[in-house]
Amino acid sequence: MTDASVSPEQSLLERFVEVRELTEELAMPLSAEDQTVQSMPDVSPTKWHRAHTSWFFETFVLAGTRFDTPYDASFDFLFNSYYEAVGPRFERARRGLLSRPSAAEVGHYRRDVDARMGAMLAGPLEGRQGELTELGLHHEQQHQELLLMDIKHVLSQHPEPAMYCERPPAHFDAVVVSGDRVEVAGGITEIGAAPGGFRFDNEGPRHDVLLAPCELSGRLVSSGEYLDFINDDGYRRPELWLSEGWATVNAQGWHAPLYWTDAGGSWQRFTLHGLEPVADEDPVTHVSYFEADAFARWAGARLPTEAEWEVAAREESAVTPLRLEPPAATATSGFFGAAWQWTQSAYSAYPGFHPEAGAVGEYNGKFMVNQQVLRGSASITPPGHARATYRNFFAAPSRWPYTGIRLAWDAA
Amino acid sequence: MTDASVSPEQSLLERFVEVRELTEELAMPLSAEDQTVQSMPDVSPTKWHRAHTSWFFETFVLAGTRFDTPYDASFDFLFNSYYEAVGPRFERARRGLLSRPSAAEVGHYRRDVDARMGAMLAGPLEGRQGELTELGLHHEQQHQELLLMDIKHVLSQHPEPAMYCERPPAHFDAVVVSGDRVEVAGGITEIGAAPGGFRFDNEGPRHDVLLAPCELSGRLVSSGEYLDFINDDGYRRPELWLSEGWATVNAQGWHAPLYWTDAGGSWQRFTLHGLEPVADEDPVTHVSYFEADAFARWAGARLPTEAEWEVAAREESAVTPLRLEPPAATATSGFFGAAWQWTQSAYSAYPGFHPEAGAVGEYNGKFMVNQQVLRGSASITPPGHARATYRNFFAAPSRWPYTGIRLAWDAA
Amino acid sequence: MTDASVSPEQSLLERFVEVRELTEELAMPLSAEDQTVQSMPDVSPTKWHRAHTSWFFETFVLAGTRFDTPYDASFDFLFNSYYEAVGPRFERARRGLLSRPSAAEVGHYRRDVDARMGAMLAGPLEGRQGELTELGLHHEQQHQELLLMDIKHVLSQHPEPAMYCERPPAHFDAVVVSGDRVEVAGGITEIGAAPGGFRFDNEGPRHDVLLAPCELSGRLVSSGEYLDFINDDGYRRPELWLSEGWATVNAQGWHAPLYWTDAGGSWQRFTLHGLEPVADEDPVTHVSYFEADAFARWAGARLPTEAEWEVAAREESAVTPLRLEPPAATATSGFFGAAWQWTQSAYSAYPGFHPEAGAVGEYNGKFMVNQQVLRGSASITPPGHARATYRNFFAAPSRWPYTGIRLAWDAA
Amino acid sequence: MTDASVSPEQSLLERFVEVRELTEELAMPLSAEDQTVQSMPDVSPTKWHRAHTSWFFETFVLAGTRFDTPYDASFDFLFNSYYEAVGPRFERARRGLLSRPSAAEVGHYRRDVDARMGAMLAGPLEGRQGELTELGLHHEQQHQELLLMDIKHVLSQHPEPAMYCERPPAHFDAVVVSGDRVEVAGGITEIGAAPGGFRFDNEGPRHDVLLAPCELSGRLVSSGEYLDFINDDGYRRPELWLSEGWATVNAQGWHAPLYWTDAGGSWQRFTLHGLEPVADEDPVTHVSYFEADAFARWAGARLPTEAEWEVAAREESAVTPLRLEPPAATATSGFFGAAWQWTQSAYSAYPGFHPEAGAVGEYNGKFMVNQQVLRGSASITPPGHARATYRNFFAAPSRWPYTGIRLAWDAA
Repeated sequence: MTDASVSPEQSLLERFVEVRELTEELAMPLSAEDQTVQSMPDVSPTKWHRAHTSWFFETFVLAGTRFDTPYDASFDFLFNSYYEAVGPRFERARRGLLSRPSAAEVGHYRRDVDARMGAMLAGPLEGRQGELTELGLHHEQQHQELLLMDIKHVLSQHPEPAMYCERPPAHFDAVVVSGDRVEVAGGITEIGAAPGGFRFDNEGPRHDVLLAPCELSGRLVSSGEYLDFINDDGYRRPELWLSEGWATVNAQGWHAPLYWTDAGGSWQRFTLHGLEPVADEDPVTHVSYFEADAFARWAGARLPTEAEWEVAAREESAVTPLRLEPPAATATSGFFGAAWQWTQSAYSAYPGFHPEAGAVGEYNGKFMVNQQVLRGSASITPPGHARATYRNFFAAPSRWPYTGIRLAWDAA
Repeated sequence: MTDASVSPEQSLLERFVEVRELTEELAMPLSAEDQTVQSMPDVSPTKWHRAHTSWFFETFVLAGTRFDTPYDASFDFLFNSYYEAVGPRFERARRGLLSRPSAAEVGHYRRDVDARMGAMLAGPLEGRQGELTELGLHHEQQHQELLLMDIKHVLSQHPEPAMYCERPPAHFDAVVVSGDRVEVAGGITEIGAAPGGFRFDNEGPRHDVLLAPCELSGRLVSSGEYLDFINDDGYRRPELWLSEGWATVNAQGWHAPLYWTDAGGSWQRFTLHGLEPVADEDPVTHVSYFEADAFARWAGARLPTEAEWEVAAREESAVTPLRLEPPAATATSGFFGAAWQWTQSAYSAYPGFHPEAGAVGEYNGKFMVNQQVLRGSASITPPGHARATYRNFFAAPSRWPYTGIRLAWDAA
Repeated sequence: MTDASVSPEQSLLERFVEVRELTEELAMPLSAEDQTVQSMPDVSPTKWHRAHTSWFFETFVLAGTRFDTPYDASFDFLFNSYYEAVGPRFERARRGLLSRPSAAEVGHYRRDVDARMGAMLAGPLEGRQGELTELGLHHEQQHQELLLMDIKHVLSQHPEPAMYCERPPAHFDAVVVSGDRVEVAGGITEIGAAPGGFRFDNEGPRHDVLLAPCELSGRLVSSGEYLDFINDDGYRRPELWLSEGWATVNAQGWHAPLYWTDAGGSWQRFTLHGLEPVADEDPVTHVSYFEADAFARWAGARLPTEAEWEVAAREESAVTPLRLEPPAATATSGFFGAAWQWTQSAYSAYPGFHPEAGAVGEYNGKFMVNQQVLRGSASITPPGHARATYRNFFAAPSRWPYTGIRLAWDAA
Repeated sequence: MTDASVSPEQSLLERFVEVRELTEELAMPLSAEDQTVQSMPDVSPTKWHRAHTSWFFETFVLAGTRFDTPYDASFDFLFNSYYEAVGPRFERARRGLLSRPSAAEVGHYRRDVDARMGAMLAGPLEGRQGELTELGLHHEQQHQELLLMDIKHVLSQHPEPAMYCERPPAHFDAVVVSGDRVEVAGGITEIGAAPGGFRFDNEGPRHDVLLAPCELSGRLVSSGEYLDFINDDGYRRPELWLSEGWATVNAQGWHAPLYWTDAGGSWQRFTLHGLEPVADEDPVTHVSYFEADAFARWAGARLPTEAEWEVAAREESAVTPLRLEPPAATATSGFFGAAWQWTQSAYSAYPGFHPEAGAVGEYNGKFMVNQQVLRGSASITPPGHARATYRNFFAAPSRWPYTGIRLAWDAA
């Protein structure tokens, strides 16, 4: 699997080819049937991801240029995700009904877009073409991660859970073990992305924040620690939970993370490599905000704010290889590359934030309510896609992303 | 398309080969993706039909014989439709989640079952093997019809409705035009299937019924007549409707048959050949019991009882060719081969009916509540599958079967 | 409690006063709050029943006469139950939102209607006034029964089930014990109501039916017998159930009749007198059609058709006193006065049935789909309201009416 | 109507009597039926509020003292709102089923609790009795406001909306007109409640925040301004809305604030005094967070953060009289007494916040997710209940509280 990190010398065309190829690599183990199924409204079929990321280049980069020769007029309706300014769109929860275009046809569509983008990128760029291509590549990297999250959910719904691929032989990455706490000093400091280099609009403006001194764990919570929480009746003690979390636990019958099953005394979890035993040293993943928050309360700690997290993590390299599941040792590793980490910060605009006008402005700003910020990156995040200032967000009950827990404490 | 009718000289093996081949022929125009989608809980994916009908032979014919070498143990769970006696089963509404086995793998499965059945049928049959094979073939014919009903619904859900295949060139079947009324004399007469020859258990016992004299239309209601009903505000006049029908009309926003759309003044309908204009001489199809009943009331008529229908139809040949859509002239034809006809009879046991013990007994009897009987056959009914005593049944709101309307009147 | 039976010498005015008084007597134990609550969409608040039955006289009898001085114009919207021809109406499932008019105001309304009806009935009647008054009285008797069914459900929803009234001291009715089977001869016989005397439109026309010889139980199934069914795993054996029944049992978690609770080894049931132990000799009540059908299958019997029932019962007197709960001995009594008995007949039109034009015609005919016929009467049926030809009907899953089970067998 | 403000000389007993009496005064215009109805899951019946506030004193103040003689053991189950630590409770959405205890019985219950509390408060207080009594009084004041919000919704559901009481004759309050903007300087400042005096736990700890300079409107948005938004297609332009807001607008069919109806060209609104015309100078009320946010975007402004709001408002007196509807001039008034004002701050813990152990700790902390903070107070807020540090919170779609809009702008 491609795992090259961003290299500053790469041309935009080289970057384009590399990112687009990774998407197709990720889809390769999947049959046409696998690529068609939608297992819940939040999930999109693999072939939809493949098509939508191509539509994004057609709509936001190629449109209006001399490379604007739309592949199929109906795709504007089928593969628009949520851009109101672009026009009407097919209902999200019904994407699993789209038997057509076929997975093979989507492949043709991708190659057509690639050819036109390649021709454009080979010549001198005009206006915002470079900037919007960059946006499209980061957009596609987000969908690479979604594609893996989503197909994991699809395959897990099978009565005999199906495998995405065999687990590769053990590897020997040099994992940075950093189990100690990271201290964050109090006072005024700047967070957010400064101009220059790619960043999503919601990462700025860079601005001052006032922090009280605190400490963050240098590693993620492990499966072994989470089992202690379960065994201490964590899922049966309302005093540990937010009210909405407790209602969700009971309504959904939660008693462990998503993908965990109690196989008569020993825990197993569904992975993209099939069912595997839960190992103590694994980072715990696929937990909701409610579970992260309850675990922290049980542990006598709390979740960090996003500002605390960013300050603690900003010296660390964000480049990590793409792996389908976090390797065991990553529970003891740093801030990036294992699982997204829930923060106690609700997702909202930074002071002075104004989304761009037009459809591109719909990218982030319109989701700023009833979401929690997650920071870091996951094992399935494509290399080069993570940053200390990156603001991921999901609704509090979400468990199908690769989510994990980092603890924080007020300074003594 | 195969349209040979039953010929008494055919061996059971020849019959087996012919019926099994027709299923595969019907699936041939469909991609792997088309065969995977489930568009509503009532609908099953094409590849599920292909697998389930094979499972039926494995479970009810091959099991316990020397040809009992199950193809895949998990299929018992995946492809059991509703047989409680056979064991647990995968939830019906979730069949669209089964990306695996693939459509190709289902093909292998079918050929494996065919080989074992072929070996068995080539030799001398024992016990109930012949009788249960016969049941399996009639079962598969039912699913051939379901497969077409279901894929029609799947394809219609596409934002730009997709075609199953091109409409074949016009043909010149000798259609029996019989527009006149058929008189049914009053008195005691026998209905139901007599022993001998294949029939489903619910068609017997043959028994006496008492009829009052009446008349049945010799043809189905046409689309032109149904348009008169629509244009006379038929869908907006509560006095024409059963109470539950009126509630359904309003809750679902019905204002025409399923698959009809008002294209700015002219009506179109979705067919397996794509969108086509509604023609006056077409039989109206895809109407619910509620609509059939309301139309009859509007027309100053009523729907026939199933006994009246059977007595009127029993002299007519039930053998008709398989066609994907009823040809236009069939609105003026006889009792079989255009669309199933709603009767006013609720589906219930004939006097003295007792289902067989065991799983085979679950075939029909356990559905005898809240269903209406339909009689006749549809254009998509496989040749040789129809009989005057055949009792089809669906819930009153169903519109995705090929349903139509035949009127009746009390004798003057 | 008034329990006088119909006496032919009573004037219509005397009848009117007696029926109207009984409704108010039945509401008397209930507070204003009790009369306001709606515990499920099927249930109506007591004060709604009291108002609706008055509205019926205003709308169908007084309107257009010189006594037509409407009490409150808004009541036409509030207290129309389902008459499309009369105009729009308040949504059924929201009747519990009507805090106004108050229970006391509904009392005023009733007295106003009574005064106007009294004035009319004291003078010479014109046109259909007598006939429609008679219909209104039978309509009100139906609602007396509904009022008791409904308030029982309301009170049962209380966390500590509330009592309607104390159980009266034991009484010494001469109960006709008739445990033996009743034989029904085969052949052609007439059923349905003949002209003359009051009957609902759905009870006619009187017409010939053809019966096969059979036997009906002379009594209802007892709670002791039903306990045997429960203890024999009746609720856990799919082979005993209709498919829709089995789905309902599992979706609703049914394991006993409505109002029964397992109080740690001994069964209790909620009654209008509060919680009481289940006694073997009680008739089992509050069972759905699905449960009645499954019980009969388990017992090696079947449910009667409505024609068989009518022929078996027609010699028996239908007059029984109103009691809030069936007394114990009635499990061994005859056809009337304990609980309505499910038949295997779906509710449909008798041959030649045509509902009246206009709103009065909506009384019965428009419900003729997806309902089962019940025959007999219940302990809460007002005296004089039952007849051998009476066709009650409810949807198969209904359990809040006072329903019971009578078995039938084909003749040996 | 009592409208005395808090006077520091009042004894706790005098305060207790005054607050408890106001609840009964507010219920006085309501019949037993009005007090029983629950119009949606968020709403509680009036008599439930009356009982629950009494249960609060029984459970958190009287329990364990010598005045601990519970009135009715079952009330612990019926009238617990959400305190998991106290034990199980009756489901919130089913409170409308509680016909018993009656409204009159709830009156007895209140007087019994009052007598025991009075006896306790007349003597020397021990332990936390004084502090918890104070909490109970502020709790009851919150429910006074809820009672009015809730009964407004109940009465509005009536097909002919019912009145709570006549609008009182015009009054001549000296309204502080302060239409100008209020400037907030940037820098570090303290917000939150300092120890001493009553405050809810979520108002502390007092802590430093860092503000950028900004301006807040000195008044609320008026109905006239909101009409301009409506007439400028505000409800039909997705670019003005948060994504979840736009989905809600479409799913719910919103096109104006709750309680507004378009009476053929002129707008009317339902009030506790019945239907009244919308007047331009009214503050707009009963808008969701989504509407407030969209209006601000349309107006080229934004909503304030809660810290900005507190700093701008903290010099103003929070004492205002209780009025059932905000008087017209209040659109041009200050920070308190018209309608709660949505802020862009999600409800979360202040740094160092730790809820108390035990049931009292469930008061506020467990709701800290998926809620927005509102600041100020409403016309129906009881006098003496408002504070500049008060943090009210509701889910973003809520419209039945008395909510309004105050705009903010970044400093030029």
